[in-house]
Amino acid sequence: MPPDAGLLSPVRAGTEAEAATSDLAYLTAMLDAEAALARAQARLGIVPADAAEAITEAADAGRIDLVGVARRARGSGNPVVPLAADLRALAGGAAEHVHKGATSQDIADTGAMLVAARARRVVLAHLDRALDALAGLAARYRDTPMAARTLGRQALPTTFGAKAANWLLGCLEARERLAALALPVQLGGPAGTLDAFGEQALDLVAAYARETGLACPVLPWHTRRTPVADLAAALALVTGALGKIATDVWLLSQSEVGEVAEAAGAGRGGSSSMPHKRNPALSTLIRSAALQVPAQVQVILAAQAAPHERPAGEWHAEWLPLRECLRLAGGAAETAAELLDGLEVSTELMQADLDDLLDVLGDDPGPGAAAVLVGQALDAYRRSRT
Amino acid sequence: MPPDAGLLSPVRAGTEAEAATSDLAYLTAMLDAEAALARAQARLGIVPADAAEAITEAADAGRIDLVGVARRARGSGNPVVPLAADLRALAGGAAEHVHKGATSQDIADTGAMLVAARARRVVLAHLDRALDALAGLAARYRDTPMAARTLGRQALPTTFGAKAANWLLGCLEARERLAALALPVQLGGPAGTLDAFGEQALDLVAAYARETGLACPVLPWHTRRTPVADLAAALALVTGALGKIATDVWLLSQSEVGEVAEAAGAGRGGSSSMPHKRNPALSTLIRSAALQVPAQVQVILAAQAAPHERPAGEWHAEWLPLRECLRLAGGAAETAAELLDGLEVSTELMQADLDDLLDVLGDDPGPGAAAVLVGQALDAYRRSRT
Amino acid sequence: MPPDAGLLSPVRAGTEAEAATSDLAYLTAMLDAEAALARAQARLGIVPADAAEAITEAADAGRIDLVGVARRARGSGNPVVPLAADLRALAGGAAEHVHKGATSQDIADTGAMLVAARARRVVLAHLDRALDALAGLAARYRDTPMAARTLGRQALPTTFGAKAANWLLGCLEARERLAALALPVQLGGPAGTLDAFGEQALDLVAAYARETGLACPVLPWHTRRTPVADLAAALALVTGALGKIATDVWLLSQSEVGEVAEAAGAGRGGSSSMPHKRNPALSTLIRSAALQVPAQVQVILAAQAAPHERPAGEWHAEWLPLRECLRLAGGAAETAAELLDGLEVSTELMQADLDDLLDVLGDDPGPGAAAVLVGQALDAYRRSRT
Amino acid sequence: MPPDAGLLSPVRAGTEAEAATSDLAYLTAMLDAEAALARAQARLGIVPADAAEAITEAADAGRIDLVGVARRARGSGNPVVPLAADLRALAGGAAEHVHKGATSQDIADTGAMLVAARARRVVLAHLDRALDALAGLAARYRDTPMAARTLGRQALPTTFGAKAANWLLGCLEARERLAALALPVQLGGPAGTLDAFGEQALDLVAAYARETGLACPVLPWHTRRTPVADLAAALALVTGALGKIATDVWLLSQSEVGEVAEAAGAGRGGSSSMPHKRNPALSTLIRSAALQVPAQVQVILAAQAAPHERPAGEWHAEWLPLRECLRLAGGAAETAAELLDGLEVSTELMQADLDDLLDVLGDDPGPGAAAVLVGQALDAYRRSRT
Repeated sequence: MPPDAGLLSPVRAGTEAEAATSDLAYLTAMLDAEAALARAQARLGIVPADAAEAITEAADAGRIDLVGVARRARGSGNPVVPLAADLRALAGGAAEHVHKGATSQDIADTGAMLVAARARRVVLAHLDRALDALAGLAARYRDTPMAARTLGRQALPTTFGAKAANWLLGCLEARERLAALALPVQLGGPAGTLDAFGEQALDLVAAYARETGLACPVLPWHTRRTPVADLAAALALVTGALGKIATDVWLLSQSEVGEVAEAAGAGRGGSSSMPHKRNPALSTLIRSAALQVPAQVQVILAAQAAPHERPAGEWHAEWLPLRECLRLAGGAAETAAELLDGLEVSTELMQADLDDLLDVLGDDPGPGAAAVLVGQALDAYRRSRT
Repeated sequence: MPPDAGLLSPVRAGTEAEAATSDLAYLTAMLDAEAALARAQARLGIVPADAAEAITEAADAGRIDLVGVARRARGSGNPVVPLAADLRALAGGAAEHVHKGATSQDIADTGAMLVAARARRVVLAHLDRALDALAGLAARYRDTPMAARTLGRQALPTTFGAKAANWLLGCLEARERLAALALPVQLGGPAGTLDAFGEQALDLVAAYARETGLACPVLPWHTRRTPVADLAAALALVTGALGKIATDVWLLSQSEVGEVAEAAGAGRGGSSSMPHKRNPALSTLIRSAALQVPAQVQVILAAQAAPHERPAGEWHAEWLPLRECLRLAGGAAETAAELLDGLEVSTELMQADLDDLLDVLGDDPGPGAAAVLVGQALDAYRRSRT
Repeated sequence: MPPDAGLLSPVRAGTEAEAATSDLAYLTAMLDAEAALARAQARLGIVPADAAEAITEAADAGRIDLVGVARRARGSGNPVVPLAADLRALAGGAAEHVHKGATSQDIADTGAMLVAARARRVVLAHLDRALDALAGLAARYRDTPMAARTLGRQALPTTFGAKAANWLLGCLEARERLAALALPVQLGGPAGTLDAFGEQALDLVAAYARETGLACPVLPWHTRRTPVADLAAALALVTGALGKIATDVWLLSQSEVGEVAEAAGAGRGGSSSMPHKRNPALSTLIRSAALQVPAQVQVILAAQAAPHERPAGEWHAEWLPLRECLRLAGGAAETAAELLDGLEVSTELMQADLDDLLDVLGDDPGPGAAAVLVGQALDAYRRSRT
Repeated sequence: MPPDAGLLSPVRAGTEAEAATSDLAYLTAMLDAEAALARAQARLGIVPADAAEAITEAADAGRIDLVGVARRARGSGNPVVPLAADLRALAGGAAEHVHKGATSQDIADTGAMLVAARARRVVLAHLDRALDALAGLAARYRDTPMAARTLGRQALPTTFGAKAANWLLGCLEARERLAALALPVQLGGPAGTLDAFGEQALDLVAAYARETGLACPVLPWHTRRTPVADLAAALALVTGALGKIATDVWLLSQSEVGEVAEAAGAGRGGSSSMPHKRNPALSTLIRSAALQVPAQVQVILAAQAAPHERPAGEWHAEWLPLRECLRLAGGAAETAAELLDGLEVSTELMQADLDDLLDVLGDDPGPGAAAVLVGQALDAYRRSRT
């Protein structure tokens, strides 16, 4: 039985992001990296074409003992040493061409970027679903008045559309940041000098990038962790934007407010002890992710100050936090899409609470430029869709 | 294939702490909590004795679909809702007595404390092994001179025994903090008022504590997270003390220093590309844990400011970070015990580096009170053993 | 004009903790440490008694250019190098006896512990005021029914006394943790070996502890940062317990809930734009502290893995975060005492909200053992007072 | 005496960034924001032109009691309430036009962005000086062989130019990220609806942006904190890139390595107790910043999940961490520029250490594509300069 099947992390249990970032996904990606390297080298005549084919065929996660690799990784500090050994054993006559001129970090980092690229597709797809739902909410409730609340107190009127427009723009900004990131291939060899490749060094990196579908970096980035730091920060924007929505939904669905509610449904929002309750369970899950990701980002940002050409710990400390950022963001995005698709809005209770405020205010100042602001956000959303 | 089999966390892959903190371990502990609650209630006549027996028998993790529970947890926000349903289905005629008067958090928190108690035993056992090794190093090298280094520069003479004594005392302090923690049972019911138990409320909590072997709290602590915050902080002391050792071993084993080395051995310290290298792989693993745990603690400390009688996210955000603290600390302790048991010390290279320093100093000020300090630490170690 | 007069940190602007942790307080404490060292050395005959007197007299913060010391600290990486130089210049004939056998870190760490000890007195005094107020609330509202809320939804009845009892116990646990900490003197000399003191080394440390009023450590702790890590963790318990209260007050004082309110008063809770609003300003300030402290603790916990006998950065990174922990905790405690002394409780609105819940429930299950739990917490409070 | 004159933060004591982010700088910026708002409103005919002039004249930090504002901020939770009151008092007949239609957060956030814009100029200027020095090092030592080190062990040859090229590219990437950020003006009014401005709302925001020199946002961002989160993340890239350099310099300047040294100079690198030592003091300062900033970023990222239209704590918790990010990054950049300008490189010791490695390797594999990689980085540097 595996150490982690998602029992402690329902926000991503069973989600696409969980699958895209599983240990199996990492193993597959590292094998893909080894195979792509061989094929790129074959293109440049560094290894024979049939060796690259044989390596590509051998690089099959189903033939590797994942748990065994994980445990043997304790010997070298990283899983690529045992994995490359296993791949050589599977590659038959092509064994000598496996992992040629590479260092463990080349494969591990390229594998991580492949996982990130695949998980990013998942995150973006769910964000897009959330964006569509948000745009719908903003448009539908453009003129629906409600009380704006500051420090928990009713302040002045706004509209639910304006609130949704703010949610929408936050998600849109996070989406754009994430989508724009270059996720580069890693290839530097043991000392970061591409020493095994002579004049072909830069061409090989470019070919490797093409074979993997990743970006081509200016230099190896073994200890220049901008790509990882950037990615982590972008994922924190995602969970931040989603966490903002979830926080508002939680607060708006309080018993005493009730202006929105998560969709009722089989197995959603139940309590183990109070059948009368309908909990904002999806918001809770999203918030659990938003509260964890910034700390994971901290680890990654701090790991930038990495010694020499490979650190003794800083790099290794990045792996789990980056995975958590990816799968918490992906789980939160999938959960948010479900939440927003089913969000129930009570315009009556919005009006009732607003009436209480208007009683205090004495007159109704109206929602100001709320409708205009909704238009601004919807324009930005539409531009992003074209 | 599970999302996490340890591939990205070699510091704990295959360790005892990994097993003690697996999802299966949590599932088992939550079932243990349900069973203990039934037995405690039977002692007080709240449920029939044979129902408690039946529940105890049914509370068998092998009969539960763990992955299914994890995924169904998305509906309620926590795994206890589906788990309690499954347990009822297994309990036959005792179904109505399952989870009586409890809330999900009672079972989840008690389960987490049971996991923590079991994982703590693992951590302490490995720390003890490390402490023994450290005491051995401190005693053996009490008078072995070496250069003390500040800001990376040789400063004045010290002894390797004094360095080991400092390591020893750090681990000892962390051990004492961790061992002294009270890990309490959780029982409060849906509102934290023990509403279902009337006059028997406090007696039931005490009986529940006895049945689980956990401590009896003054009050339910649903949103008074001192036990979790304390535990996390103590685990950060453990990884901090071990990380200090690992940092020193990494630096002392640099090619240009070479005063210590990790034990050579099958599958230890190899490089995928440089057969001549012997890497401080165990130190690297320990450092990877020490760099991650403080951020996990941050999440837990921040979660203390939890709304009302149960938060919508803060509690849920604690789960993974606490597990990471436990298993990273346990993995680091097991790794440190291995590291210290096999640490190779070159008194010759210590002397050679010191000679360089003495050349600069002009004369030898000697190691001051280093031997006395070693004695202080060994006394503290011996006192802790009795 | 100084870089920081508190404009960005109203939670501690003008508080006692701010004064107790100011740069001037640190400067004073470092001078106190130098003077205490000289006096301790005089007791053992290491320096002449009149030199110790002269140094004590010279160690007057009013005679030191604080800003100049801060800037000259850039040269050495810490402020003690220029400070010791200035103190020598002020000490006249005793100059040669200033800072004898000490290293910069001895003075900086001892100074920090003196500041911590003084700031702790402030924190504890304000916590005590808060505890008294909390005990009063728990007793007064022991039987005042209100709705317990989980995930923002009304769950079952509890009492306001039970809520206050939980707040009380959280603060009490944090207080006990903080009060119990040993804050040790630091003395090790350049290499941590007390090399300058021969047979007198341990006696000198003990005498130094007595002169400062701090605890006597087993060993120098230049790179065994348990005292700082422990202190930071305890301060996070303080802000966590206070942050819990502030979060509840914020939520209970929402317009739609209104069950409690911060005291109205001159300059409290106003809005720059909405005269009708009464904001939970004190809760907001306390929460701002609770949200910052865990991250500061992260820095300190991570700094435990400090190289060799003095790190090149980890120690230096501790200084500001520790100060922030102290002054945010102290500011939050002072603010919480003010908040709790003036907290307005509307038992009518509590009943009204509870009535809504009881309508849903159909019957009134009552507050369970809430009154008993209040008694438990009050007992613990009373025991702590004796 | 102010609470903070830099004594505990030598990395920024007396630096330009410290001045640019002082409380006085914030006060000035908030006053600039009030004045710019008045002028923008005058352009649109919302306030009389002479009132805008009077307000601009009155908005003089020298006429405000900064410490008093800081303390009165405790009443409202933010400093703008008392500041706006003071400004009204100074504005004479224009008082009624001060802060028109704005909310405190509009001024505080706009002020923070003005401070950020001014501090960014400082950071960028120092980064540019560092970049020039790094480009010089990369070019000068393009072919200077040295040992690459992984996990602290000599691995294979590289060149010092390749190391400098990696440093250069890291700083360049961080610079580009920081320089590209849009720092927007904030204007939304109490509810974020620009309620006071009717049809002129968007025009006013645009005019306000022009008056301040800041960017014009799509929507108010009171609780959509992308600008702050982005800025913080970019500053962590800066300290990460600089921290990487500092870490390498620290390690290369160890007594046993000695391949580089910080420039000797008056008041640089001294020890309070060991005159023979030359410490990497500037590297130490830079590292102290790199170790703190990621935790400050954590606070800011977590604050994104901010309730409703203004949070009760999350916003307030951002202020100090953002200031720390700015001034630590600026201090680190200024320190790094000094470090790199004076860095002493010993090609002899590089060769000597490399010779040791070559002895182990048996033959000299050469530095691979190191020179080509240097060219890549220098090209990127040159492109960025045009």
